[in-house]
Amino acid sequence: MTDVSISDAGKHLTLTIGGNSHRFHAIWLRDNAADAETRSPGNGQRLIALRDIDPYTRITKAKVSSGSLLVKFSPEDKTVAYDLGWLLDNSYDRPSMTEPGWLDPGKETWTAQLNDQVPSADFEAVRRGASVKRGWLASLARYGFAKLTGGPVENLALMQVVDLFGYVRETNYGRHFEVRTEVNPTNLAFTGLGLQAHTDNPYRDPVPTVQVLYCLESSAAGGENMVVDGFAAALRLKGENPDWFRVLSRYCARFEYAGEKGVVLRSRKPMIELAPDGELIAVRFNNRSAAAINDVPFEEMELYYQAYRRLGEIIDDPAMEVTFRLEPGECFIVDNTRVLHARKAYSGTGTRWLQGCYADKDGLLSTLAALQADLPEAAE
Amino acid sequence: MTDVSISDAGKHLTLTIGGNSHRFHAIWLRDNAADAETRSPGNGQRLIALRDIDPYTRITKAKVSSGSLLVKFSPEDKTVAYDLGWLLDNSYDRPSMTEPGWLDPGKETWTAQLNDQVPSADFEAVRRGASVKRGWLASLARYGFAKLTGGPVENLALMQVVDLFGYVRETNYGRHFEVRTEVNPTNLAFTGLGLQAHTDNPYRDPVPTVQVLYCLESSAAGGENMVVDGFAAALRLKGENPDWFRVLSRYCARFEYAGEKGVVLRSRKPMIELAPDGELIAVRFNNRSAAAINDVPFEEMELYYQAYRRLGEIIDDPAMEVTFRLEPGECFIVDNTRVLHARKAYSGTGTRWLQGCYADKDGLLSTLAALQADLPEAAE
Repeated sequence: MTDVSISDAGKHLTLTIGGNSHRFHAIWLRDNAADAETRSPGNGQRLIALRDIDPYTRITKAKVSSGSLLVKFSPEDKTVAYDLGWLLDNSYDRPSMTEPGWLDPGKETWTAQLNDQVPSADFEAVRRGASVKRGWLASLARYGFAKLTGGPVENLALMQVVDLFGYVRETNYGRHFEVRTEVNPTNLAFTGLGLQAHTDNPYRDPVPTVQVLYCLESSAAGGENMVVDGFAAALRLKGENPDWFRVLSRYCARFEYAGEKGVVLRSRKPMIELAPDGELIAVRFNNRSAAAINDVPFEEMELYYQAYRRLGEIIDDPAMEVTFRLEPGECFIVDNTRVLHARKAYSGTGTRWLQGCYADKDGLLSTLAALQADLPEAAE
Repeated sequence: MTDVSISDAGKHLTLTIGGNSHRFHAIWLRDNAADAETRSPGNGQRLIALRDIDPYTRITKAKVSSGSLLVKFSPEDKTVAYDLGWLLDNSYDRPSMTEPGWLDPGKETWTAQLNDQVPSADFEAVRRGASVKRGWLASLARYGFAKLTGGPVENLALMQVVDLFGYVRETNYGRHFEVRTEVNPTNLAFTGLGLQAHTDNPYRDPVPTVQVLYCLESSAAGGENMVVDGFAAALRLKGENPDWFRVLSRYCARFEYAGEKGVVLRSRKPMIELAPDGELIAVRFNNRSAAAINDVPFEEMELYYQAYRRLGEIIDDPAMEVTFRLEPGECFIVDNTRVLHARKAYSGTGTRWLQGCYADKDGLLSTLAALQADLPEAAE
């Protein structure tokens, strides 16, 4: 039973479908009209601005007819059809998410238990099959990391990985960088030292949102890679003490890198970043580039340091870690706004050569969304 | 008179300089030590993590000596020297900024009055002179936009502009894009239509933080460029009605672009973005790619639309606009997280050919900071 009624002198209507009611405002409906005068049929862009819509727009008629809601507006005397499914998908007449740290339902947190089922796919299979690619990108979006195996063992093979979903983000480190032991390293990553789990380049704003690390040589002992879900760590911190979560999300940290000539990168961002409505959207954690934190009031600094220490302990907890060893032709991709990566120390005998590069999530998520639109019924 | 005293059983100290007192915690001081065991002398990166510092770290001795504060810590039995100037610069014992919408003091808002003194420099002068470049980049950072004149009139000259300060952000639009009339435009930018002032690509996360628009041909009538300071507009909105500012910063809008095959870009971000402590950090405004807003509760939607409409009116107000016409070899650069740009409609006779590209602020601000470090005494 689908029904519609007009209320508040035409300022909104109430659409009732299957026993649930959804109110929509006249101005919202008019602004979201999809007719050819409002939206370009070719590229979907809106042809008008809000200034072109009368502020006193009212609903004068509304009826449901064969899967559509037909709405007539005054003073324009214009009738617009809305798909009922679209209206339900975009209904805003519902309780808001307000709890700090809520997660996009498309994301799933994980701990060491994921060691048994590391998201992974074969390079050629992803390259050739839209359905495999869709599944692999969906895992990457859901877990914030995934491996790719069976790729070519050749210089710059990582660029072929980026081509699968997006575009390289070039930085002062180049379009790509070599991760192997250097004599005078500009960055501790280019030594044999173990590195605590971290997100890359938190001193950069915007941070590179995707990182690819691709293995070309791997005969040295050690050097295993580890990943930790920063969202799982942040939410565990919150569970242990909401005040710890509060201070790390409420105050900005500072990060800095000035390790090479002509480069002074600085940022002022929280370690745990929330959207204004509380969605957990990013984690930044990097002991090497943490600068002096000076935006926390004196009275909160001790608590802040307790929280920062505890977050580090959670990140270091083996129960949080997924560990794997990359062989030549294998790589892993991380969502650098969420998943921390680490490596164990490695020895001077044998070689360990990885190539790394940055990319961005916009391209990755766009490629996934386009595949999902093209293959809506593919199993996953 | 400089003095130091230890309090709270060594948990913090109080440094008094010139009549002002600054308290620093033991753990903060120890974490920010700059000695060679804590920080790499070569690249400045921290060699230890917070886990390597005892949680019960206390100050056992503190004295001031020739421009430095010397602090001895237990249980490590380690003495560290801190530069007094550095301590004052990083003092956190001060009232916090809490008013929503506070601005980085390095930024200055502007309105149409800036028409008389548009930040601008000569391409060759910037390329050849570190001091000119420093001044030009400082203007760009302060105002969020600047022109560059006298550049080469040749294909891809805009890449030479990006080389002055950073790196191109490649996207589905390519490393650069052509802005001229197309027959089947994938984007309304590629028509002769006037465009309301907007920020580019708000449907992308991260958004490209810098845009360059470079003129190669300009004989058509019309097509002038306009820029509007989104921060000035947001703060004017707040001055008119703090509740309008509140709803546009408190709730996420949605943006979408799916105008070409294989591309479905979507974002969920507020039109006015604040840091967690209220700093105004970004504005997104684009009628063409605004998608259905469905994260605003029903009860606030009318107010939200009033605020959205009023923000658009402020942006459209000629009193906010800086207008100029680009001649061949001229370009302008905008901070796309702050400054909106627009263009007037242009006719079919004559030509108007611009090339555009995206880049990022991290490189720009790093180049500026490095020049400022190298040329600390340059007049500005």
